[in-house]
Amino acid sequence: MTSNNNTACLDEAKRVAIFGGTHGNEMSGVTLVNLWMKNGSEIQRKQVKTKAFITNPKAVEKCTRYVDTDLNRAFTPENLSAPGGHDLPYEVQRAQEINKMFGPKGSPEAYDVIFDLHNTTSNMGCTLILENSKDHFNLQMMNYIKKAITPASCLVLLNEHPLLKYSTSRSVAKHPVGLEVGPQPQGVLRSNIFEAMRDILKHALDFIELFNEGIEFPPCKVEVFRLLERVDYPRDANGNIIAMVHPNLQDGDWEPLNPGDPMFQTFDGNTIPYQGFGTVYPTFINEAAYYEKQQAFVTTRRETLVASAIRKA
Amino acid sequence: MTSNNNTACLDEAKRVAIFGGTHGNEMSGVTLVNLWMKNGSEIQRKQVKTKAFITNPKAVEKCTRYVDTDLNRAFTPENLSAPGGHDLPYEVQRAQEINKMFGPKGSPEAYDVIFDLHNTTSNMGCTLILENSKDHFNLQMMNYIKKAITPASCLVLLNEHPLLKYSTSRSVAKHPVGLEVGPQPQGVLRSNIFEAMRDILKHALDFIELFNEGIEFPPCKVEVFRLLERVDYPRDANGNIIAMVHPNLQDGDWEPLNPGDPMFQTFDGNTIPYQGFGTVYPTFINEAAYYEKQQAFVTTRRETLVASAIRKA
Repeated sequence: MTSNNNTACLDEAKRVAIFGGTHGNEMSGVTLVNLWMKNGSEIQRKQVKTKAFITNPKAVEKCTRYVDTDLNRAFTPENLSAPGGHDLPYEVQRAQEINKMFGPKGSPEAYDVIFDLHNTTSNMGCTLILENSKDHFNLQMMNYIKKAITPASCLVLLNEHPLLKYSTSRSVAKHPVGLEVGPQPQGVLRSNIFEAMRDILKHALDFIELFNEGIEFPPCKVEVFRLLERVDYPRDANGNIIAMVHPNLQDGDWEPLNPGDPMFQTFDGNTIPYQGFGTVYPTFINEAAYYEKQQAFVTTRRETLVASAIRKA
Repeated sequence: MTSNNNTACLDEAKRVAIFGGTHGNEMSGVTLVNLWMKNGSEIQRKQVKTKAFITNPKAVEKCTRYVDTDLNRAFTPENLSAPGGHDLPYEVQRAQEINKMFGPKGSPEAYDVIFDLHNTTSNMGCTLILENSKDHFNLQMMNYIKKAITPASCLVLLNEHPLLKYSTSRSVAKHPVGLEVGPQPQGVLRSNIFEAMRDILKHALDFIELFNEGIEFPPCKVEVFRLLERVDYPRDANGNIIAMVHPNLQDGDWEPLNPGDPMFQTFDGNTIPYQGFGTVYPTFINEAAYYEKQQAFVTTRRETLVASAIRKA
């Protein structure tokens, strides 16, 4: 990146991938990517080479999140350099293959942009996941998408938390973009969720095309929700869950949660209130896949980020 | 059953079981039964002996529908009498064990009532599943429950279709009662669904208690939805799904579907209308577990059944 009159001059984004099936039971991404692998006309742009790719085909075949371990946590330096070949867990082998095809992660040869398509059982609507608050290319893209889909809405979750950030499949790219759309049960394809995801991808690719054509994007502000902490279900001494997400909180993703607000409801009918110090914005509320990760929801804080003007170098 | 002045005199219903975890990822039933196995005071009645039981513990542990084969299709005469012991599929072994504990199916020693607790990703609300339109005990119980939970509602699905009826876990009992509550994603526990299920069980057990105490229940009419046929997703020559449930039909369980109404939406945006001969009432619309069973939804017909007066013999 070079800077020119406060405009960041960035490399062209010629090589773009769209990942589906990182979790094999999140059906909108799986279905879209399968469609686009058969017929890619919808995702082609003149100035962009886009590759649709199923990242975890064994999990897709079984319609399960993963086979041995969560692929979307598997792109650690340790895994990517682990010896062992076919003795490694399936998803670690797969992470190494993907890193060879689309990376290597952190190298100049890596793909420019990877979109990774996810669904959630939470009532999150359309959510773009940003991994770096200084990624002006992604911030500009997200700003573009938010405007393009109006009056529909699309929020931005920023995960650069030192402990909670994880090693995603998309992290192989220079500009990793997570797209999480819900609510959709695992193993189910809902037309509204499918079409919302498809629409966002269309605008994302349009943005990249415009950028590659040399359009300058002026500075802009982007509202993001910064990941703060994870909240587990209340448990007994044996680790068994003893309360559910409270009905007032259920489906209330992105709505303010204030100290004293109901958070959990025990099986004998008692309410456990939120006891933080100020207003937070919960999300990933009651996501099916996060029971095993000891997470009932995460809290976030609203922030406004400023994206520099950008254009192609 | 004997008849006395048009009142059916039925055996007491002393032995009652509540099954959870027949599908290990349907969390309301799993959670309720686990709770009640620890503390059964909520499900005890003076005149009833109620046993809460997890039917498929391995599937519950893995939070998956089943391990080898669907337990809720496994209670066939062939399976229940199959030799092979530990070489049989896990769920067939388990069906044999359950049949020994709660049956034998079709014998005088069988349990009187088994409630089997299920969740669905479909927008079915509370649904009682009846396997026999001549089961006056169950019809009276369902009538009692429907009245007791007013203004909440609870519909009755009648499955005595010669081809589509299947060999359920609960079929071991003299009076099998399925309870299906949704929408709830697999692997998720929603407080509203959990509490609705719990409330229905309370009233069901109250009914049995009253019956065992000698109360006579007068004749009544019960509206049921009789299972007619299953409808698969449109597929290509390779068996791949090429359309989704249409947004107009999605979540419209129990609403009338008329010839010409939108039924599916292809991935390229075309609408496929329903082409039956008259009004039907679809349900189990877009249930996650039925993709593998080639079923997008089932159709039903509304009927009114008459239940005889009943009392304890």
